[in-house]
Amino acid sequence: MSNHYPRRVKIVDVGPRDGLQNEKAPVPAEVKIGLVHRLQDAGLREIEVTSYVSPKWVPQMADNHAVMAGIERRPGVRYSVLTPNMKGFESAVADRPDEIVVFGSASEAFSQKNINCSIAESIERFAPVVEAARAAGIHVRGAMSCTVGCPYEGEVAPERVGYLAGLMKGIGVQHIGVADTIGVGTPVKVQRAIEATLAHYAVDDISGHFHDTYGQALANTLAALELGVWQFDTSVAGLGGCPYAKGATGNVATEDVVYMLHGMGIETGIDLDWLIDAGDYISGFLGRKPNSRAATALLNKRAG
Amino acid sequence: MSNHYPRRVKIVDVGPRDGLQNEKAPVPAEVKIGLVHRLQDAGLREIEVTSYVSPKWVPQMADNHAVMAGIERRPGVRYSVLTPNMKGFESAVADRPDEIVVFGSASEAFSQKNINCSIAESIERFAPVVEAARAAGIHVRGAMSCTVGCPYEGEVAPERVGYLAGLMKGIGVQHIGVADTIGVGTPVKVQRAIEATLAHYAVDDISGHFHDTYGQALANTLAALELGVWQFDTSVAGLGGCPYAKGATGNVATEDVVYMLHGMGIETGIDLDWLIDAGDYISGFLGRKPNSRAATALLNKRAG
Repeated sequence: MSNHYPRRVKIVDVGPRDGLQNEKAPVPAEVKIGLVHRLQDAGLREIEVTSYVSPKWVPQMADNHAVMAGIERRPGVRYSVLTPNMKGFESAVADRPDEIVVFGSASEAFSQKNINCSIAESIERFAPVVEAARAAGIHVRGAMSCTVGCPYEGEVAPERVGYLAGLMKGIGVQHIGVADTIGVGTPVKVQRAIEATLAHYAVDDISGHFHDTYGQALANTLAALELGVWQFDTSVAGLGGCPYAKGATGNVATEDVVYMLHGMGIETGIDLDWLIDAGDYISGFLGRKPNSRAATALLNKRAG
Repeated sequence: MSNHYPRRVKIVDVGPRDGLQNEKAPVPAEVKIGLVHRLQDAGLREIEVTSYVSPKWVPQMADNHAVMAGIERRPGVRYSVLTPNMKGFESAVADRPDEIVVFGSASEAFSQKNINCSIAESIERFAPVVEAARAAGIHVRGAMSCTVGCPYEGEVAPERVGYLAGLMKGIGVQHIGVADTIGVGTPVKVQRAIEATLAHYAVDDISGHFHDTYGQALANTLAALELGVWQFDTSVAGLGGCPYAKGATGNVATEDVVYMLHGMGIETGIDLDWLIDAGDYISGFLGRKPNSRAATALLNKRAG
């Protein structure tokens, strides 16, 4: 079985943006910068740093310029940011991100509730953003939400994922993430969503983004590895709640994924001990324990 | 990928025994009986009920006779008990278990520390127990601990698992469990341990028993399914701590496994809602939340 797994995996840590955005208490820019620094020290080579959304909607990301300006950039590390529209993109450009992230939902109901327009309309709105980014030499990643299930519609058919992936491809999105936003996915369903995406993107341009709400994220990661997917979004210390399930977890913890991959002999370039320090740093600031079983076990071991 | 998975999986809930045995506060026999009843109501067809160990060592299981006597047995459900030696077996027989569980460690160091004898000696001691059980028409299951890692030795080679499985087979153990006792295993390592066992047992006589200490249990379950393994030990509400990692989890939660299997279209005969009730019942008694992400998410959903 091991023979057909990728030998190397690239992890994109989305903790500073996707993870922190739902935190109610403001996290100072210097703490966010400290987290980014610790993540790159740990070996992360892509970090989703912030977003350029209206501070009215996401006050936690209002310090985007300060955070981007404060990071000591390291060669070989890609710093990505979320841009919801042209205004956000224009605001982001000054901060020289290496990559922007645009998004869309595979569920029509979620698109309506979340961004108040249809899937097709949302893609239309992103088209000029993608064009402008590519003209500026900035890489464009697309994030597809609700590719397995939706809090409003229930199960989402793979055909809907294929439809969205095709629209993303059509406007020039270079890389695509298959996200199980509410964490309801299980291995076979996740594979169906990825297979639908493979009709439009090469496997090298696809990443998996799994939430651990139902504890399925590592099994889903393994299922994605089976299909040759070798890029994953994860969140250090499991930062990021899921607004649709109080008390439940959000993004899969980077530590858990790295523990699994290293155990399987798959390289990530990440030092697990340093990564745990990064998670411990931000969790300490937030006044809680890392939401990662591997981190918990290893921190217990350190404590003896 | 889905085509080669088993269509049906049998879950053995070990919560009442393996799960509760490390609880410090005594759990009354009627609560244990209530848990067994709720598990069989939920559709479990094998339940590890209690053990016949000296109450000096495991005071929580001192009520074994009362628990076994109090269960309203249901046709088609197998009630299994742990018997560490001939004395335990003789004590168990009066309670008419359907199956006894004997055990051994794949790690020599663990065997010495845990039961104060070598692996070979432990098997020798179990030989008459197995013989007596089979003569009495009682099914014998063997539990192999530390098949991936050991708290004293570190990594455990698959050859050691094969050695132990061969010894178990030699004394007439009919079914064998491959346990990752400290939860350090990852998919490929777990497959190596199972493959070593397959040299001595048919896949239909092998079960997986994974701890979730490092969050790897579902991925390991998926990896075992890949090899055709279709029987798993799990523990409702994730009952059962791991004494080697304070605060970390022990047995994988039955709810998480069932959620994954049903999501994959694999039958278990278990009603997940009823199962969650069973986990909620025992967790309520213990004064905590179920240690299961699927149960947490679904209980949150119920609460609206």
